[in-house]
Formats: sequence, C-alpha cells, structure tokens
Amino acid sequence: MNPPNWQTYLVTQASLSEGRSTLEIVEAAIAGGVDAVQLREKDTDARRRYELGLEVRELTAEAGVDLIVNDRVDIARAIDADGVHVGQSDLPVAVARGLLGSDAIVGCSASTVAEAREAEAEGADYLGVGTIYGTTSKDVDPEQDGVGPERVAAIADAVSIPIVGIGGITADNAGSVVEAGATGVAVISEITAADDPRAATEALAQAVETATPIENGGIANE
Amino acid sequence: MNPPNWQTYLVTQASLSEGRSTLEIVEAAIAGGVDAVQLREKDTDARRRYELGLEVRELTAEAGVDLIVNDRVDIARAIDADGVHVGQSDLPVAVARGLLGSDAIVGCSASTVAEAREAEAEGADYLGVGTIYGTTSKDVDPEQDGVGPERVAAIADAVSIPIVGIGGITADNAGSVVEAGATGVAVISEITAADDPRAATEALAQAVETATPIENGGIANE
Repeated sequence: MNPPNWQTYLVTQASLSEGRSTLEIVEAAIAGGVDAVQLREKDTDARRRYELGLEVRELTAEAGVDLIVNDRVDIARAIDADGVHVGQSDLPVAVARGLLGSDAIVGCSASTVAEAREAEAEGADYLGVGTIYGTTSKDVDPEQDGVGPERVAAIADAVSIPIVGIGGITADNAGSVVEAGATGVAVISEITAADDPRAATEALAQAVETATPIENGGIANE
Repeated sequence: MNPPNWQTYLVTQASLSEGRSTLEIVEAAIAGGVDAVQLREKDTDARRRYELGLEVRELTAEAGVDLIVNDRVDIARAIDADGVHVGQSDLPVAVARGLLGSDAIVGCSASTVAEAREAEAEGADYLGVGTIYGTTSKDVDPEQDGVGPERVAAIADAVSIPIVGIGGITADNAGSVVEAGATGVAVISEITAADDPRAATEALAQAVETATPIENGGIANE
C-alpha cells in the first residue's frame, strides 16, 4: 500500500463524547473531512467493539475514509478494517503484519527515536508519535508536559515513514506539530469532546493544511 | 477436527499462582496429566500474553497437550494455538470460526441452555459451562451459588458437543459434574493455587476418570 498521508485522524473513545454515540462523532468527523478513524474504545468489551466496528466500517467505507483498529488484529480482520494500530504493550508490529498481510496498514505508537526506528524496521507503515502535549485523553499522567514537537522533529529525522502526532493536539497547536515534520495529527478529545465535532474537525484540517513543514532532512518535503 | 475429549483443562491466571510463574504451573499440570491449557491471563497486556503464549505453546506442543487462547483470536493465531475460547462478551463464535478456519478448536462459555444452543448452532466445538459452584477465580459474584451440575445436565440434553464444567470445581466435586454429563472439568484455582499443582491435577484427573457418567441420551438421571 501507499504510505498513509493523513492530515486528520480521529481516535474514538465513547467515554469522552459527552453522552453522544461514537457513531455520531464519527459521522460528524467524516462530514468535517477527517482522513482516518481509529476504533479505540479501550474500555469496551470485544463483542461491543466488533459490533460498533461493523457500523463504523460502513460509514467510513461509504466516505472513503480509512479505518484502523486499535490493538486487536482479530477485530480489524473481522470488520474488514484497513489496518491496525499497535502500542508498545500490544502485539509486535511484525506479528500484526504477519497476521494481516502486506496490503494492510500497520501503525505503531512511538515516543522515542529508538521505538520509532524499531517500528519502522519491523514494517510499520506510519507512526503515532506522542504524547505531544500533556493530555487527559489517554492513560498518561495528565500533569506531564509531553514530548513536544521537538520529538516529532527528531523522529522525522530518523525514519522515513509518515508520522501523526498525538496527545493534547488542538487546532491552535496542530501547526507546530506539522511544522516539526508530522504529516498530520491524531486526536481524541479535540473532536470527540467538542461542542461541534464537525467544526472541530474542519478547524483541525485547516490548521494542518496551512502549516508550513520545515524544509529539511526529515520527511516533510519528500 | 474431532470434538475435544478433555477430562482436565487448566485455565491460567498468574495472579492466583501464589507467586509462581504461569510456566511453572503449566509445567506441573502437564506432569500431572492435564489434557488442555487455556491461556487466559485477563489482567495482562497483549504483548505479555503473546510472549508468554509462545513459551506455553512450546511446553504444550512437546507434551501433546491442546492449547487454547481466551478471547483473542489474533494471539491464538500468532502463537499457533489449537484454538480459542470465547465468552458472551467476546467475538461471536461464528466470527472466531471464520477467522481461524474449520481445523481450529472454537469453544464458548455458556451458562444457560439458550446460550449453549446458540453456540452450537454457530459452530462451537465445545462448551465451557458454569459457573458451576460459587467461585472467586473469575469475575463473578463470589457469593453466588453457581448454576450447579443440574445446569450441565440440562445443557447436555440440549446439545451434542462436549461440555467442560467450570467454576469452583475441586477433586471432591468434579465427579458430580461428570456424572451430570460433562466430558471434563476446567479449573483455575484448584491447580493454580494448589500447594502441589501436579498432585492437584492428578487428583482431578482421577476424580473425573472414576466418575460414572449417566448412561442415557443426555440429562443426568432421566
């Protein structure tokens, strides 16, 4: 497959959606032009993730939006997702690749240059780099500062696969992440918890679109 | 495949092993003659379950013991397990079967006749029926009495696939479960928390072996 060239990437988490359904959030994000959706829903059992995944697959397929499943390769296959995203505590990239084949997208979370290099060597198609800014969306210390756009720049310099920044990204700071070398940004709260998830997606896309990637040895301009 | 004909079935859970490793418990159970091992380890992340699974696969393959993975079809495939065991909150039996193919063993938890019939209709190879006796090993109310051997008898009457009873089973009460119509018994604590897991496995096997299944079309004593 071609390396994913996503500018905006929604990671789902029903518990942050202020009572709205994940489907409703995904629908709004698609209307707002999101490029990829990751079915995360970590606190939901496999049966529900599978059932929800079938519905999200229908919406994303209709819209031509890529669908990635967090962690579970089996659910990704069962709902015919485009790929899987694994973290450092999930199945190794090479194992996920072996199960899904070469046509699937396999992404990996990396917070250091070493993790990024290893994921690329194992065959990852893209990296989720973060936590960029301190965030309460995922299971990280909400007080931490995050690795910052500097880490994106360091990783972009070390690998040649696309990077999406994740963690505490908003329309206000997304530009810095892209300028540091990311292709796009992944968010949970910025879209999921927004008053208007569609407008939030559009604002994010606009911020990424207008950012000027630094012209250097990273992946920005290749 | 042939329907599994297990008499003793160990379900792993490191947190109940009194500080011993899961590998150590599995090794002792194999020495004691266990017929099948289910990699459960619900409170462990996927990476660790995969790594541990590779080691358990080596031990079980050497001994000719069947290895089943709880819930995760992807891990089952990645470690070349013999099959998967799904609960009512996991992927549906038919989906697991579709992902694993007809040669794999697919088991399903059932606590009612309706669940048992549905699992059989979807293609399950065996049923784990329980909770038989109140137990603290799994995520059930420790105060509950369990469905009892009567439920095994009712389910054995309704389906034609093998049944293993699970939940609070010991060498003392295993006989009643087999007499009610189960082929064998699955345990966590009885082996995992035993002072001597090998001896506990032997005692369990002996109890199952000497129990006399009721000789008729299904229900225990009719």
